[in-house]
Amino acid sequence: MQQPLTEEKVFKDPVHNYIHVQDVVIWRLINTSEFQRLRRIRQLGTSYLTFHGAEHSRFSHSLGVYEITRRIISQFERGEYTDWPKEEKLVALCAALLHDLGHGPFSHSIEEAFGMNHEDWTCRIILGDTEINTVLCQVEPGFPEKVAAVISKTYDKPIVVNLVTSPLDADRMDYLLRDAYQTGVNYGTIDLDRILRLLRPHKGRIVVKDSGMHAVEDYLMSRYQMYWQIYFHPVTRSSEIILRLIFRRAKELMNQGYTFGFLLDPLPDLIRGDLTVSQYLMLDESLIQTVFNLWKKEEDPVLSDLCSRFMDRRLYKYVQIDSMDMSMIDDLRAALAKAGLHPDYDLEIDFPTDLPYDVFRKDGSTENQILLLDREGGVREISEVSDIVRSISGIHRGKYHLYYPQNKLEQIKDKLPPDIQKLFVK
Amino acid sequence: MQQPLTEEKVFKDPVHNYIHVQDVVIWRLINTSEFQRLRRIRQLGTSYLTFHGAEHSRFSHSLGVYEITRRIISQFERGEYTDWPKEEKLVALCAALLHDLGHGPFSHSIEEAFGMNHEDWTCRIILGDTEINTVLCQVEPGFPEKVAAVISKTYDKPIVVNLVTSPLDADRMDYLLRDAYQTGVNYGTIDLDRILRLLRPHKGRIVVKDSGMHAVEDYLMSRYQMYWQIYFHPVTRSSEIILRLIFRRAKELMNQGYTFGFLLDPLPDLIRGDLTVSQYLMLDESLIQTVFNLWKKEEDPVLSDLCSRFMDRRLYKYVQIDSMDMSMIDDLRAALAKAGLHPDYDLEIDFPTDLPYDVFRKDGSTENQILLLDREGGVREISEVSDIVRSISGIHRGKYHLYYPQNKLEQIKDKLPPDIQKLFVK
Amino acid sequence: MQQPLTEEKVFKDPVHNYIHVQDVVIWRLINTSEFQRLRRIRQLGTSYLTFHGAEHSRFSHSLGVYEITRRIISQFERGEYTDWPKEEKLVALCAALLHDLGHGPFSHSIEEAFGMNHEDWTCRIILGDTEINTVLCQVEPGFPEKVAAVISKTYDKPIVVNLVTSPLDADRMDYLLRDAYQTGVNYGTIDLDRILRLLRPHKGRIVVKDSGMHAVEDYLMSRYQMYWQIYFHPVTRSSEIILRLIFRRAKELMNQGYTFGFLLDPLPDLIRGDLTVSQYLMLDESLIQTVFNLWKKEEDPVLSDLCSRFMDRRLYKYVQIDSMDMSMIDDLRAALAKAGLHPDYDLEIDFPTDLPYDVFRKDGSTENQILLLDREGGVREISEVSDIVRSISGIHRGKYHLYYPQNKLEQIKDKLPPDIQKLFVK
Amino acid sequence: MQQPLTEEKVFKDPVHNYIHVQDVVIWRLINTSEFQRLRRIRQLGTSYLTFHGAEHSRFSHSLGVYEITRRIISQFERGEYTDWPKEEKLVALCAALLHDLGHGPFSHSIEEAFGMNHEDWTCRIILGDTEINTVLCQVEPGFPEKVAAVISKTYDKPIVVNLVTSPLDADRMDYLLRDAYQTGVNYGTIDLDRILRLLRPHKGRIVVKDSGMHAVEDYLMSRYQMYWQIYFHPVTRSSEIILRLIFRRAKELMNQGYTFGFLLDPLPDLIRGDLTVSQYLMLDESLIQTVFNLWKKEEDPVLSDLCSRFMDRRLYKYVQIDSMDMSMIDDLRAALAKAGLHPDYDLEIDFPTDLPYDVFRKDGSTENQILLLDREGGVREISEVSDIVRSISGIHRGKYHLYYPQNKLEQIKDKLPPDIQKLFVK
Repeated sequence: MQQPLTEEKVFKDPVHNYIHVQDVVIWRLINTSEFQRLRRIRQLGTSYLTFHGAEHSRFSHSLGVYEITRRIISQFERGEYTDWPKEEKLVALCAALLHDLGHGPFSHSIEEAFGMNHEDWTCRIILGDTEINTVLCQVEPGFPEKVAAVISKTYDKPIVVNLVTSPLDADRMDYLLRDAYQTGVNYGTIDLDRILRLLRPHKGRIVVKDSGMHAVEDYLMSRYQMYWQIYFHPVTRSSEIILRLIFRRAKELMNQGYTFGFLLDPLPDLIRGDLTVSQYLMLDESLIQTVFNLWKKEEDPVLSDLCSRFMDRRLYKYVQIDSMDMSMIDDLRAALAKAGLHPDYDLEIDFPTDLPYDVFRKDGSTENQILLLDREGGVREISEVSDIVRSISGIHRGKYHLYYPQNKLEQIKDKLPPDIQKLFVK
Repeated sequence: MQQPLTEEKVFKDPVHNYIHVQDVVIWRLINTSEFQRLRRIRQLGTSYLTFHGAEHSRFSHSLGVYEITRRIISQFERGEYTDWPKEEKLVALCAALLHDLGHGPFSHSIEEAFGMNHEDWTCRIILGDTEINTVLCQVEPGFPEKVAAVISKTYDKPIVVNLVTSPLDADRMDYLLRDAYQTGVNYGTIDLDRILRLLRPHKGRIVVKDSGMHAVEDYLMSRYQMYWQIYFHPVTRSSEIILRLIFRRAKELMNQGYTFGFLLDPLPDLIRGDLTVSQYLMLDESLIQTVFNLWKKEEDPVLSDLCSRFMDRRLYKYVQIDSMDMSMIDDLRAALAKAGLHPDYDLEIDFPTDLPYDVFRKDGSTENQILLLDREGGVREISEVSDIVRSISGIHRGKYHLYYPQNKLEQIKDKLPPDIQKLFVK
Repeated sequence: MQQPLTEEKVFKDPVHNYIHVQDVVIWRLINTSEFQRLRRIRQLGTSYLTFHGAEHSRFSHSLGVYEITRRIISQFERGEYTDWPKEEKLVALCAALLHDLGHGPFSHSIEEAFGMNHEDWTCRIILGDTEINTVLCQVEPGFPEKVAAVISKTYDKPIVVNLVTSPLDADRMDYLLRDAYQTGVNYGTIDLDRILRLLRPHKGRIVVKDSGMHAVEDYLMSRYQMYWQIYFHPVTRSSEIILRLIFRRAKELMNQGYTFGFLLDPLPDLIRGDLTVSQYLMLDESLIQTVFNLWKKEEDPVLSDLCSRFMDRRLYKYVQIDSMDMSMIDDLRAALAKAGLHPDYDLEIDFPTDLPYDVFRKDGSTENQILLLDREGGVREISEVSDIVRSISGIHRGKYHLYYPQNKLEQIKDKLPPDIQKLFVK
Repeated sequence: MQQPLTEEKVFKDPVHNYIHVQDVVIWRLINTSEFQRLRRIRQLGTSYLTFHGAEHSRFSHSLGVYEITRRIISQFERGEYTDWPKEEKLVALCAALLHDLGHGPFSHSIEEAFGMNHEDWTCRIILGDTEINTVLCQVEPGFPEKVAAVISKTYDKPIVVNLVTSPLDADRMDYLLRDAYQTGVNYGTIDLDRILRLLRPHKGRIVVKDSGMHAVEDYLMSRYQMYWQIYFHPVTRSSEIILRLIFRRAKELMNQGYTFGFLLDPLPDLIRGDLTVSQYLMLDESLIQTVFNLWKKEEDPVLSDLCSRFMDRRLYKYVQIDSMDMSMIDDLRAALAKAGLHPDYDLEIDFPTDLPYDVFRKDGSTENQILLLDREGGVREISEVSDIVRSISGIHRGKYHLYYPQNKLEQIKDKLPPDIQKLFVK
């Protein structure tokens, strides 16, 4: 079933230098139309509007995740560790390559707007009537189901699930390195080679040799920095808010029976929340951008203004505030509405939080733990050993920001009560 | 007129680390919808189908060209060189920033297919009823005309033209560095700092201090390597051929009165060759990709096949041949047609050539010369001094490739005469 | 007095690309024999025995510190901040360049062994009968005293002292970057450009704009990682221990009237602790290594063994232990002595500690604070704002290690009590 | 005989990231005193006086050459190429690691001054009474002879010799990358991974797949640039000239029976040209620098002046001249002597040449050829195929420089005939 290529194929990659494809199946998966579609989905959504270098796609990232996974398994095989089930190599590689297959255009915003979930869509594409499914079926009957099970974390070999999804997995390692490379920041530069050298399969989990403690600390700090400096950058949040408002408005208009000047399949079904797999696969960022570009001329002024803002990058401004409670938000909205602004579209409150590392999940599970392996085969959760990790463990961080259209606010500013005016004058 | 920002703005850039914006005009130009459109035009056209990292846009590149130009001028000002006309700074910066404004989607292929020219469009956008024009007019009356003149090389201060367009200009320096960075190759890594430090304004031209000779040699060799390893890569050429064939087919169908299942403004006028500026500005790679994705389902089998090939990356295969003459091509086409292939769509011959450096242009002009300045103020053309440059000067390089659909060829291969069969069996 | 060079001189530097020398005084200081001596003192002492790339000298580092300081001041001048006293530029640059002038060979070990202090020696060289002093005197009478005062932190303009020595100074920034570059680790890669852009002179101190908080967090974490992964690496500590033991033995032998087979000026006076400035300047790592190489053949077996160990890199092995108290150490030494080992030379206990950041010094002073400047001109100590910094602030970290000659221990192991044997068998 | 380590050892390396040691023999060789001595021999001799970053040692480089060789062989083994004799792996790795073992301090200058040859010394150390020899003998009797034969190119398996010494060998690849990294220039950045992937064992030689032609072109151009920009830099040449003059003067004084104020073993025997292996191994750059530092105070003014010049970096100045013949040199020397300068020590003529690539050696041999392998197994010499390589093939490049003590020349300038004065006034 596992069939080596007669000659290894390579992709030149700016992060890993070369990506090595050695199996026929992997090569064929890459060449399906569903996988090629990932070229039209940016890895970092709207971040390119803040960091112009962030133009890379989920296609590049997926190759990178595959390559890191390949290197981990190859190290396990060289080390001849008995805790690694050799026969699981191909299913792990396929799951690594395909784990992002179901991402939609500007995924986080679109998921939030339409209550979708990219992981579900990944599984639907793998199991549906697709080229991906055909290629996977050639391995053996039931193989697509195996790959989907790994991705949905229900596979019966926990170590394969742990390899593909864990707090120290190939996905995170690739995106830290790649997003840092593309944006030009240096916060994400982790010592990949060292971490990979020190991973070990151990009783159904992937653990790290304890000599790698500092490298893991550094990885967790890199992750933390990338979240606050890149992923949660307020300008990026602003563009995501505009996106969400566009989707919200389109839905509202659709429900009101508004006749769109321009509409393209499968947008009506997307808005209605009822897409088939083949319709879903039509969705990419080209289509969304093309539609938004045409919606700049829609009659509805809210929709056309929001689309202009997104396409021409005239985003909402923001102010940071120290704290916020519900009644305060209600007062604020009421005051803005009274002054003539649109209470639903001219103010958004945002409070991103990230948990850099935690010993226990809310549900008490320990899946998120990073475990260190000592020479005697003992295993310890990292925050028991590392002062730094302990000190950041469980820290919830967050800042409140208000987002609003600066030009509109300017016009009505004088009509606002002084304490609310003060919020916006920083 | 030249108006500094109260606080310098910076863009984080992976190649130059930071891009520094110091003038209100530059800031406003970047924030026009016409300039933002460059985010939707890739710098390297279809190269991302060969090097997946090549996903960067002309937006990023344009910022880079601006930054290098800013650094050159700033060096000229610090050095207080009298040959540099200080009052030309802003026009030079604007021309550097805007020089690629008129690029269309997949520009080389679209230009070839529809006989357009991006330089003309750049000037039309600068001079037309656009946000860019409005911003430039705020500097002084006639300013847009000045910027356009620099870009079309008719400006009356030759040194400004030479700064913006020359064999050693900011455009080339940025694209070598950026394209190398994005694709992950290291051929384009020139010593930018050293070259910039050694540029001098000299009697209406930009020259290089002779101590920089080796750095210039290295730059020319980098350029040569990038052409052959990246820009002319046969897989990239194959995707450009598919693109051209799509445009050719669409034009043919339009002329035949074919009714398209899907068509979007301004495609009909594009195909007809009659676009207004505002229509041209609607064109971007999102729109082209969206259209092609829908054309996969067009009734015309030639068009739908080509669009599938482009979108799903099932490109034409190629063979390299040593030489080629017209009669041989005719025989080949005839044989393929006889065997049942389409003579216009199932075979393309490609012969890219590049001239890494030349002392004289075909027309005898010396604009392309790189001049070295010695301590006594004497100037010598570089190939007089550098053996390496002399050895590559005037070398025309090229390879013939045949491109064809592998699957179709397989089916009819046995019907081909043996000498033609042999061509394809490598 | 401040005299620009007719043409800027540059040094090619792997970390900063180019180091720009613009003043005659700086150029002349670099060309003194005392500054050139720094080429023969490694930046990281014995670290090259652990990380073979760590072969760079204090000469390279000193140029780097100068360059960063030059860039900071140049930013202050461009910003025209009134809190920066422009006339102090040259004294700051000289102090930055010369701050490491008094380092001896393998400085930390030699200082510990002979109770010396490199800062004192720096001042003695600046004020003594040296080429450095001559060059500085050419600036103006009393100038050497000014430079020495900055270095010894007694200068009457606190902002100059703060610029040259603070928890975020050019010295630390250069060594993090340079040591990371040379060893090949990536822990020290801080965003130098961003930090430099955000430094501000403010009421007699250098502070950071609060938008740079994350960059400072990242810097503090980099510093922490470099300490534990590079500077305190147990193999490096082992080589430093050997060095200290060599110096200790030589002193002991000298005091005992031992006749050395080989001795070179100014070693006797060094050991006696009574060096003139010109004698001190004879000391460099070439001399120390040459002497140790010859001492491999000394009659005294302790000295010759230690010198072989250092020169041929046969270092002491180590074990980590969880805790340690004085009586335990005494017991251990006694047991080893009883078994036949040398209690003073065959066992060393090491406990390196580092304080990554602290709000208050032991003496209650606040010199070590990093201050953030907000838009309103308010200033806050960073750990008030940053969770991460607060979480590491004041953390004393340390590990106990025992160092010993493995071969000797093997021979007598069976003579040790079981609980002590157990310590060494890990 | 070949004995794997129970656990792979790694060295962190700035160029290759990690160097992997997998055999006991390699580990032991690295830990011999003779190999550790290479830490005290700089890779680039006196280049650190021009490029301060060039402080790295032959120890680091030797590890790098070993690592590249290991990677090449490992690729040969994975590819299961029958033309590679698997049993030769260890001898090849040892020869790669040890090929620079016999380098003396500032090797090129000292070899020239005393007619020594580092390759001979490498073999003498391998075959002599040394730790290296002991380790190699543990592999099998006669193993040291095998390793020495590979290094002296007399081994009976030409492919092993070709692997270790060829125009595209691990030695050249490591030094280009490492010297570029350390000096901070980017001329030496070759695509190592690509070249290594494309090397093939083929009929007793190492050849390159023809798809690697451009990568080889790039490598040859990098090599060319490194020669002219780094290795032949006139300031470096000046320091090498000073070194040679010091050795020449010391020899002259010794022959004249001069009594040195300071002399250290084994210098008298070095000068006399009669060193044993163990004496030779005492020579390192620490010793040479220590001696020169003390010779600054020698009575002989020529020797003491030259030593001050070298230690304190007050080098000879230089002028470039277009051509030079013997009689002209004689006239020049005579004129300087007449004006009061020392004809042997106050003028040196230098004419470095390099042959970037050649099809045939002077003796007609073809060992220096780089061969390209096509798909059909045919082999072509690269300049047949590459225009660029053909254009530089056989180019002898060189520039004449005169070196002289600027201060002395200034004093007597007026006594020189005008045409000779003119030479020095540029």
